[in-house]
Amino acid sequence: MRRLIFALAAAAFAARLLTPSPRPAHAASLPPIAGFRAADADAERSREAQVAATIRPDTLRRNLRVLTETPHVAGTPADRATAEYVLARLKGWGWNAHLESVPVYLNYPAESKLELIEPQSGPLSTREKGAAWDKDAHDAAAFDGFHGYGAAGEVTAQVIYANYGDVDDIQKLSELGLDPHGKILLVRYGKIFRGLKVRNAERAGAAAVIIYSDPADDGYAKADPYPRGPARPEDSIQRGSVQYLSEGPGDPTTPGWPSREGGRRLKPAEARGIPRIPSLPLSWGEARKILTSLEGPQSPAAWQGGLPLTYHLGPGPAKLHMKVGQDYAVRPIWNVIASLRGRELPDQWVICGNHRDAWTYGAVDPNSGTICMLEMARGICDLMKTGWRPRRTLMLCSWDGEEYGLLGSTEFAEEHAADLTANAVAYLNVDVAVAGHDFRVNGAQALADVIVGAMADVPDPSRAGSVFGVARDRAFADGKTEWARRNRERRWRGEPERPFSFTMPSLGSGSDYTAFEDHLGIASADLRFEGLQGTYHSIYDDFEYLDRVVDPGYAYHATMTDLWSRVALRLAEAEVMPLHFSATAVFALDELQGIGERADDASAGAADSLVLKADLAPAKAAATRLRDRAIAVETEVAISLAEGTLAPERAAAVNAALLGTERALLGDGLPGRAWFGNEIYAPGLNTGYAPVPLPRLGQAVLDKSRAAYAGGAAPIEAALDRAAAAFAKLMTK
Amino acid sequence: MRRLIFALAAAAFAARLLTPSPRPAHAASLPPIAGFRAADADAERSREAQVAATIRPDTLRRNLRVLTETPHVAGTPADRATAEYVLARLKGWGWNAHLESVPVYLNYPAESKLELIEPQSGPLSTREKGAAWDKDAHDAAAFDGFHGYGAAGEVTAQVIYANYGDVDDIQKLSELGLDPHGKILLVRYGKIFRGLKVRNAERAGAAAVIIYSDPADDGYAKADPYPRGPARPEDSIQRGSVQYLSEGPGDPTTPGWPSREGGRRLKPAEARGIPRIPSLPLSWGEARKILTSLEGPQSPAAWQGGLPLTYHLGPGPAKLHMKVGQDYAVRPIWNVIASLRGRELPDQWVICGNHRDAWTYGAVDPNSGTICMLEMARGICDLMKTGWRPRRTLMLCSWDGEEYGLLGSTEFAEEHAADLTANAVAYLNVDVAVAGHDFRVNGAQALADVIVGAMADVPDPSRAGSVFGVARDRAFADGKTEWARRNRERRWRGEPERPFSFTMPSLGSGSDYTAFEDHLGIASADLRFEGLQGTYHSIYDDFEYLDRVVDPGYAYHATMTDLWSRVALRLAEAEVMPLHFSATAVFALDELQGIGERADDASAGAADSLVLKADLAPAKAAATRLRDRAIAVETEVAISLAEGTLAPERAAAVNAALLGTERALLGDGLPGRAWFGNEIYAPGLNTGYAPVPLPRLGQAVLDKSRAAYAGGAAPIEAALDRAAAAFAKLMTK
Repeated sequence: MRRLIFALAAAAFAARLLTPSPRPAHAASLPPIAGFRAADADAERSREAQVAATIRPDTLRRNLRVLTETPHVAGTPADRATAEYVLARLKGWGWNAHLESVPVYLNYPAESKLELIEPQSGPLSTREKGAAWDKDAHDAAAFDGFHGYGAAGEVTAQVIYANYGDVDDIQKLSELGLDPHGKILLVRYGKIFRGLKVRNAERAGAAAVIIYSDPADDGYAKADPYPRGPARPEDSIQRGSVQYLSEGPGDPTTPGWPSREGGRRLKPAEARGIPRIPSLPLSWGEARKILTSLEGPQSPAAWQGGLPLTYHLGPGPAKLHMKVGQDYAVRPIWNVIASLRGRELPDQWVICGNHRDAWTYGAVDPNSGTICMLEMARGICDLMKTGWRPRRTLMLCSWDGEEYGLLGSTEFAEEHAADLTANAVAYLNVDVAVAGHDFRVNGAQALADVIVGAMADVPDPSRAGSVFGVARDRAFADGKTEWARRNRERRWRGEPERPFSFTMPSLGSGSDYTAFEDHLGIASADLRFEGLQGTYHSIYDDFEYLDRVVDPGYAYHATMTDLWSRVALRLAEAEVMPLHFSATAVFALDELQGIGERADDASAGAADSLVLKADLAPAKAAATRLRDRAIAVETEVAISLAEGTLAPERAAAVNAALLGTERALLGDGLPGRAWFGNEIYAPGLNTGYAPVPLPRLGQAVLDKSRAAYAGGAAPIEAALDRAAAAFAKLMTK
Repeated sequence: MRRLIFALAAAAFAARLLTPSPRPAHAASLPPIAGFRAADADAERSREAQVAATIRPDTLRRNLRVLTETPHVAGTPADRATAEYVLARLKGWGWNAHLESVPVYLNYPAESKLELIEPQSGPLSTREKGAAWDKDAHDAAAFDGFHGYGAAGEVTAQVIYANYGDVDDIQKLSELGLDPHGKILLVRYGKIFRGLKVRNAERAGAAAVIIYSDPADDGYAKADPYPRGPARPEDSIQRGSVQYLSEGPGDPTTPGWPSREGGRRLKPAEARGIPRIPSLPLSWGEARKILTSLEGPQSPAAWQGGLPLTYHLGPGPAKLHMKVGQDYAVRPIWNVIASLRGRELPDQWVICGNHRDAWTYGAVDPNSGTICMLEMARGICDLMKTGWRPRRTLMLCSWDGEEYGLLGSTEFAEEHAADLTANAVAYLNVDVAVAGHDFRVNGAQALADVIVGAMADVPDPSRAGSVFGVARDRAFADGKTEWARRNRERRWRGEPERPFSFTMPSLGSGSDYTAFEDHLGIASADLRFEGLQGTYHSIYDDFEYLDRVVDPGYAYHATMTDLWSRVALRLAEAEVMPLHFSATAVFALDELQGIGERADDASAGAADSLVLKADLAPAKAAATRLRDRAIAVETEVAISLAEGTLAPERAAAVNAALLGTERALLGDGLPGRAWFGNEIYAPGLNTGYAPVPLPRLGQAVLDKSRAAYAGGAAPIEAALDRAAAAFAKLMTK
């Protein structure tokens, strides 16, 4: 039998590298569903189709209209009203739902004042003008442009332009002889999380920061501006949090522990991870007035933006007077938590989440996701009218305070850490459900197969195939040269070639999966239809924008609802959890190969004392052990499910092991940010949003740190071996 | 002895892959000079230093002032005056010089009229406005914006925007459902030679073409516009030829034979390689009025230019009325040909060339080169006052009609083909000598060592090292990741790694080396200090632009004069010609490797019937034979020169072989453009300027042509073997 398993294991490994061909949703013979007995697949698909049949454009649209009627920043009465609305809907359909109020420290703007005082003078607007035929875009209830967790302060200083304000940009300024000390840095949005721009400026000694939206990044250079198209108009301001997200999300006064009424709380001055210097967001229409008044050296070529002028660095002659007042307080926010108790395995939780709070109206961000969650919640309860209940417990979470720094989800995860660690199977996040037409999923690799399987069963609204087929075709068009090159390199290395496969990138940060994956080691994913999203965090992210420009007809929302439901239902119903850690292992192997190459590149031409050196072979060996053992178990389970011979005790044992495997990736915490425990998945320390997998090694290469690189492999090897150990125990049975 | 030679050959091969470290010009112990006895190197460098000592900023500047006083388009009286000026100077210093008048068919503009008639109406200017403090930029003697070899015609039609108008862009339009038939294509300058834009539009059925200068390519997105900086101002128009350059330069009515008074000449209607549909150049200030009036689909992301609007494709509503009149005639142009007869080997010619005609004032293009040539000519004659004459004959050529299609040089090469084939050692072209600060050289690889050797002996005006050191450091900064990757791949393939080396790219087309390298097989190179050159072919390419913006102080011109002189003098004086065909062979090997990889990339994911297949092994073997034999001879010569033991008969035999080796690269002519005979070096058929080395294979991959790819290797193999045969004969002695 072991021989057979290993033969099949090899086949399964080959299959891992193959991706399914796009399957029509109604093909005569449908493939099996991972984790299900062959005999149960039809019933599962039938239930999923019943949920899909309940999805209605008009309910999606009506819920959006209600949720986006007024600006609903976290902690405001309008935000509370949206929580009550979601709670009432969920309860009404039959979910066991309640509000969890969390007290968090956060700010509202008291004053956002900016004026150019040299070489000309005049005020710079920190508010949009509105659009004539868009009723929402004029609401006085919307806050002026400001930054969540921004510092208060008054500064008068000359301006230096610093591109995206990332670590390399600040370094480049220094190489060019420009000193940010005491200056106002003007940086553009994009590339990295905005809080890290402020962090970098503060560390460089700047007095203040202006972050503006350059038309090269999300304006007319990308598409026609709203209302003609989806891009950012001249006056549109991107609000947003300036927390130092990649160093730890959540309430900055309760780092690592839950925020409770009367609970332990740092003094604001002790809180790390939030700025000490003031900052403001700005539109390009206003930023242009500053940029046209900058002299000094021409900016490096890559720093040139999309405005019709040659970008110079300054400092000056542009000089600004900036006055920022903040109204900080501990305020309540409201998570809505709902569940349907599992019929067989109530202590295994499949969790779906989406935040609800918004910087203004939040039509796309996040309520495009909220309407999908509500539609899914209604559809599943409709299904339950047939008497069916899911095998495992399903949970829905409507998070609050995400915009400030993933507050609701982080505090929830910290509050319920023990239960989540014991019970959580997976976390499926949808933040922006629909900003365009390109499906994108990031996630824990263990979830890739169940997600890809569902993608292959859902037709894409473009009618060009399934969501999977369209995404794979796009990936192939973008990546075939790279794929050909990688295969050539494999040939040269004597390794087998691989067919083209759709690969799911891992998670960085920027939404509510962060605490689940990075802090608690719960396999998580984030799903969205991507697009330009040029009204992001502005007053124009409103009903009219979504309804007229982003998804008229709500076809993409319907598809997201269908897909999200299917993934959740499969995870909740599967006899054996479809968590495939062979994928995690292959991902780690590929990343180790890539990191070695990037270290080689980073060392090119460097003096020997600066060359990055590490022995990656032990970590590769650990990943190979995990891969081979996981394949053996996955193959054995697949065979016994196909044959209908899986014993209940065996299923229980495998499920128990799978429940703990993602947790096994947690180590002692990453250097300088111990809250991040996952040794495989993390956001880049200096990117914020973007992932830097195998973060000890990946970050060491980015930082060109010899010591971190040399020492980075051992904890990764240990994590992979902890994961492999669970499978080793299963194999001895 | 053979064993010693081969041991040294291996060392020499290793040395080929090493590049010299930057040498201070006055180091105590200078390296040998290729082709010279060790004992003669000091004398050679001393002569070169004497020439360098004669270079004066004030004579450079004075000559520029005279040459750029009036617009001097080929064939005009003003052009004739510049020829007389150059002739008089050269004769005055002692050169044997004369005018060669060549009758060529070419056009002057009779009418260049353009107006927008829908959705608004108004004239579009085909002329610059001038700059207040620049006296030249107002001269009525300058032609309106027009195209050399442009067709006359009158068209009223809607506009389609077609990006750079290359083959892929036209294909993309078709994929997007836009039909150019009967439309005016608006394309931007850049990426490919302008004539091919018109060719592509004409083949697609367009009625006319407008080519405008987008600020993303050479305007404010790159640098501050003139007069503040070097970039193109709003009203500046790039004139230029629209001949189908990559299909054959020279007078289009005498393709492949010399233009003579009363000689054979095609009727204009029979002439291939010039447009049948009218075209006009335009400034971005005027083009913006068209682009803001284009609706229809948004253009693909890469087509977005630098104007502050979202680029749409049309067609319309912008509709233009365009009326282009041309004054075509056979007119005389005037090459100035000068020589100094060689003292020992008068029948071996080292030729330097630069054109003199210009679209307007031609300060940068081409008279920055002309002033260097005059300065060099004066310096060498000063040197001859010591009684020294070069071993070989030195020739200087001041070409006319280059702007229309390399007319003067091509007709000269066709007229004197037999003598040039018998006698020419090398051709050293300088067109734009100085447009900025970045030294760039393209050329036949056999010339790389002599050029690099001279570069290492000339200090860069930046004072950051020699010209070589600065260029190598820049190349290393740009290319170190690619170098690291290539070495990693070599390791995987089991090949030796290579130290980083400065590599000289090969020649494409666009200046007067074309007939020499591609038609006659004469080892050629093109030298320049590159820069943005934002006034290129406009009325602003004048004395003020060069004198105030490009090279105030003329330090870069002085350096170019010094460098050009040293390369010419070394080639003229060397005991054994420093033509190293081992470099040609290594280049061919690397290109074969790269072409195979690009074919692999182009075939990625394609059906088997579309996969590009060719057996490149025989061509690689031929390149390896040439490499090994050339190294053997080069090593033997280097040793005997170092030891002072080279017999005169042996030197003569080697020189005779070297004289023929580049010619051995000529085959039967490339498919569809038989005038191009070189099997190793050619411009891309669809690029015009850019090289596509090993053109049969390289072009086949670009065209994804299975037949051309499968059959492309054999003629290359044959050419390499012809070259190798010359060395085989030398080795049997």
